Amino acid sequence: MQIHSIVLLLAVLAGAGCGIEVSKAAGEREDMTTPEYDAAGDMLRPEGYRRWVFVGATLGLRYTKDGEAEDEGPGSFHNVYVQPEAYDYFMEHGVFPEKTILAMETYETGTREPKSELTGGFFEDAFLGLSAAIKDSERFEEKWGYVTFKGATASPFPKARCFDCHEEHGAVDNVFTQFYPILKR
Amino acid sequence: MQIHSIVLLLAVLAGAGCGIEVSKAAGEREDMTTPEYDAAGDMLRPEGYRRWVFVGATLGLRYTKDGEAEDEGPGSFHNVYVQPEAYDYFMEHGVFPEKTILAMETYETGTREPKSELTGGFFEDAFLGLSAAIKDSERFEEKWGYVTFKGATASPFPKARCFDCHEEHGAVDNVFTQFYPILKR
Repeated sequence: MQIHSIVLLLAVLAGAGCGIEVSKAAGEREDMTTPEYDAAGDMLRPEGYRRWVFVGATLGLRYTKDGEAEDEGPGSFHNVYVQPEAYDYFMEHGVFPEKTILAMETYETGTREPKSELTGGFFEDAFLGLSAAIKDSERFEEKWGYVTFKGATASPFPKARCFDCHEEHGAVDNVFTQFYPILKR
Repeated sequence: MQIHSIVLLLAVLAGAGCGIEVSKAAGEREDMTTPEYDAAGDMLRPEGYRRWVFVGATLGLRYTKDGEAEDEGPGSFHNVYVQPEAYDYFMEHGVFPEKTILAMETYETGTREPKSELTGGFFEDAFLGLSAAIKDSERFEEKWGYVTFKGATASPFPKARCFDCHEEHGAVDNVFTQFYPILKR
């Protein structure tokens, strides 16, 4: 009887440890990649975002103000990713959870390529850079912060540089969900 | 001594079971989503591809043949995804493994949207459809097959419809990797 108890206890303990490992691997909330910052308050470049949920691409979106010259050329491609856990939360609740990172890659726009004999259209050519929108009330008074990485870290932009436009023109929760088809609920 | 042996054996067995669960959840090869077909040989629509690795977007790529009228307008957006396991294999070996599925979503191209005051550029609007390229030597004499879903299933296209162009113009292994920046090795 005592032997069985010990065996049972150990099996339960092993099983419990196993359960924790499995649910972590399956991507539960507590495993969500969260924004990290250095001592100066700069954000560290997020790892692994190319395995997150891709929410949409845009090409050359522009908001020319009165008196500004219109840009020439097609502009650049933007690819936007969000953590899978933040995506699930958004689809359920209609807002993004704290610690959401929307990672945006920018690519040069290609139109000609030797092997493909293209006569029209655009593809994503050289990688240009990585930006991010971060929902982090502990860091940003307005909840959302915006950064562009110059290497391993990025300093948050001043509020007027990104936040004001996102607040005015983003369809939901300061995000331009109107451009990302799988976020249209 | 005997008690310890039993305990040890059970702990090891529990741990072994645990290890299998964890590595499956982490996405090892044996867990890769593979193409499925119905009795008529039509491919079943793959599930969950929006959680796969996004490899790139294109807008309105065209290959106009002599005498054909040039299309007007920007054309449609294409978003391409591949199973994470096939992506890892490709990055290591330079070819796609058997049972690779490249899932391609097509979207209408939007240029105006009431909240955003756009003055230029393109975004992904209404979902138009899902196509796929499948590497499956058991099914396709030329290794790769091509389908467009009309609902839950899709009949493979005749060879001349897709394969010939992919073979001639795809940079690597019949795939247009030249348009997908994260597949450029």
